[in-house]
Amino acid sequence: MEQQNIDEVTGLKTHNEKETGISVSCRCLAECPLSQFMNRRLFLGQAALGSGALLTAQANPWPSVAPDRKLGVALVGLGTYSTLQLAPALQHTERCQLAGIVTGTPAKAQAWMQQYAIPQANVYDYQTFDRLADNPAIDIVYVVLPNAMHAEYVIRAAKAGKHVICEKPMGLNVRECEQMIQACRQAGVKLSVGYRLYFEPHHLEVRRLAQSKELGTVKLMETALGFSMADPKSWRLNKQLGGGGAIMDLGVYAVQGARRTIGEDPIAVTAQGFVRDKAVFKGIYESMFFQLEFPGGALSSSSTTYTSYVDRLYATTGYQWFGLQPAFNATGARGDSSNGKIELSTPPFQQIRQLDAFAANILDNTEPLASGAEGLKDIRIIDAIVRAADTGRRVEIDWNG
Amino acid sequence: MEQQNIDEVTGLKTHNEKETGISVSCRCLAECPLSQFMNRRLFLGQAALGSGALLTAQANPWPSVAPDRKLGVALVGLGTYSTLQLAPALQHTERCQLAGIVTGTPAKAQAWMQQYAIPQANVYDYQTFDRLADNPAIDIVYVVLPNAMHAEYVIRAAKAGKHVICEKPMGLNVRECEQMIQACRQAGVKLSVGYRLYFEPHHLEVRRLAQSKELGTVKLMETALGFSMADPKSWRLNKQLGGGGAIMDLGVYAVQGARRTIGEDPIAVTAQGFVRDKAVFKGIYESMFFQLEFPGGALSSSSTTYTSYVDRLYATTGYQWFGLQPAFNATGARGDSSNGKIELSTPPFQQIRQLDAFAANILDNTEPLASGAEGLKDIRIIDAIVRAADTGRRVEIDWNG
Repeated sequence: MEQQNIDEVTGLKTHNEKETGISVSCRCLAECPLSQFMNRRLFLGQAALGSGALLTAQANPWPSVAPDRKLGVALVGLGTYSTLQLAPALQHTERCQLAGIVTGTPAKAQAWMQQYAIPQANVYDYQTFDRLADNPAIDIVYVVLPNAMHAEYVIRAAKAGKHVICEKPMGLNVRECEQMIQACRQAGVKLSVGYRLYFEPHHLEVRRLAQSKELGTVKLMETALGFSMADPKSWRLNKQLGGGGAIMDLGVYAVQGARRTIGEDPIAVTAQGFVRDKAVFKGIYESMFFQLEFPGGALSSSSTTYTSYVDRLYATTGYQWFGLQPAFNATGARGDSSNGKIELSTPPFQQIRQLDAFAANILDNTEPLASGAEGLKDIRIIDAIVRAADTGRRVEIDWNG
Repeated sequence: MEQQNIDEVTGLKTHNEKETGISVSCRCLAECPLSQFMNRRLFLGQAALGSGALLTAQANPWPSVAPDRKLGVALVGLGTYSTLQLAPALQHTERCQLAGIVTGTPAKAQAWMQQYAIPQANVYDYQTFDRLADNPAIDIVYVVLPNAMHAEYVIRAAKAGKHVICEKPMGLNVRECEQMIQACRQAGVKLSVGYRLYFEPHHLEVRRLAQSKELGTVKLMETALGFSMADPKSWRLNKQLGGGGAIMDLGVYAVQGARRTIGEDPIAVTAQGFVRDKAVFKGIYESMFFQLEFPGGALSSSSTTYTSYVDRLYATTGYQWFGLQPAFNATGARGDSSNGKIELSTPPFQQIRQLDAFAANILDNTEPLASGAEGLKDIRIIDAIVRAADTGRRVEIDWNG
């Protein structure tokens, strides 16, 4: 169990040895700025392992291609998320760095070139985008555009031979996600979704608590994410660009929070959608509640809203509980449980781990944890949620279909 | 606004003077063991009042019948709640006291008579119950029986000329509640529901925060209450005795938490019911989620369950929030908000205030805050919730119907 978690955190291989039990190899352990957290994870791992298991850090060094240079990342779309989160995070990454930008706004291009010493040769607009194919300084294209533009630019990046990270939600619908996965497969490039929380220590700890059953088997979860949408002109409110308001924007977190913690995929959903301000919310729900049924018997209940602030994950077993509040925000997660506070050190930006893990996947030719399949999974669930709300019916999800 | 809260807390009249603004009279303020809390309420009241308002404690003493003796309470049904909560609370009450018991178990009668110095003359069983009519030492009958027995014993108590408190949930259905209200009206006795939280400081503060709009207008609420039902033979799991499992037992709190905080009655509900353990949950839901729509536009989402522990109230405005966790438990409520912790002193038992308020209603011939109408209101909502879950449809509640 535990060796899997460690693998998720580092993006590095876990090596299982039949004779000695378990041994973990981590190239970065000595010099990694995240080693404080790593050490805690290893400690937790040791505590969780049975007496027959052996956990040795830095034993059996895992041979892989040592990166001669950090992989180059080009950010596509220089909005708030790129500006305040991704570019700063890329100043802390070990295996990749900010190397290029794609923007339709010349003034932004100038400002970013200056601020981050980006050469003119690595600056593109949406007309010149496909010329990325000729630029060996760019290894990874990170698509940070409005939701409706994800599919087009992920597919164009793949065709340009670049590995791709697609911001969440992956696409507007299942078909788009499948097309992106297919395009990346055909081009032989790796695809990941911008799921920063797959690498966030509190979320990993909550997942470990649930799946180790340390506090019992999770029977009920509640997840919620919402904020007051102050800008009625935001693309997030545009059905064509955003794809569906709060449930598309915030729903992936609420869905993920439940299914990743429980470690199962929901088999059925019910959902309720509400619109209070019909002048602003046209063709999309303002608030949405949904309930997920998991095959092991657990249930979850979730809220997403553009009306007001809520940010929480809660899991309860028979007599114990654990959770996060704030939970899904990019900073400041706080954990609590019936067994005491969950206090973990965190890197300055959640995206550092996310980006370095993807770079490691490329360097070592491993499958990304936050894969296209994971992004597709959430869109499949959200699609069922919206259908459930639209029809007022319980919708089953066929994972074999 | 505020003078209304004070009235609710004390069960005493608020006197409005046109010339001087507002003046509050409180007989008990000087000697009341709850004066610490009262003073805080008054302070909050003063802070909340406009500059033209005048709040004077103990001015304009309100003439009422001074109680020569504490009113006598007879507890009907000596289960856990009577044993661990009501009897101990009645050792702290100012206006009423434990005077009698009704039990079908002779051993319990003996033990209680000894422990609480109850004379044999005030001890009844279910055959002799109606002879309460002849006992002037008993003023109030508190029905603490399984839900299905509430209506019968409330009505018999009323016919015996006794004021009645009925434990929650008031009855199995709307008709029963209406019959109880009618019987008490005809007998000229007062009726209250055992809603301890109507008098609990944290709940009053949450209600004040919502209705003063001090942190903004509440747009979304989440309430949840659940525990692991360890005893498969509990009457609470019996459809006939309990009336419907978690939603009957715990749902009144989740409903109340939303409607009392928001200060409105819901106009429509959607709900989802689930059964995981079909051997134990026969004809009742094990877990139930429901969503309430309020006329002012607020929404609430609630969970009730017999699978696992959850106990929370959360209210969010555009950018602020406040809530309680634990919220509905008989002890240990803790409040937090975007504006800091909600820390209030509380009496040793929530039922002290509840019982003294009802005694004051009798002594002063005022309408109980936790009236039969309030109990009926929650049953009407729960009835709609169950219909919504059974049918999968949104159910509107017609409050004029």
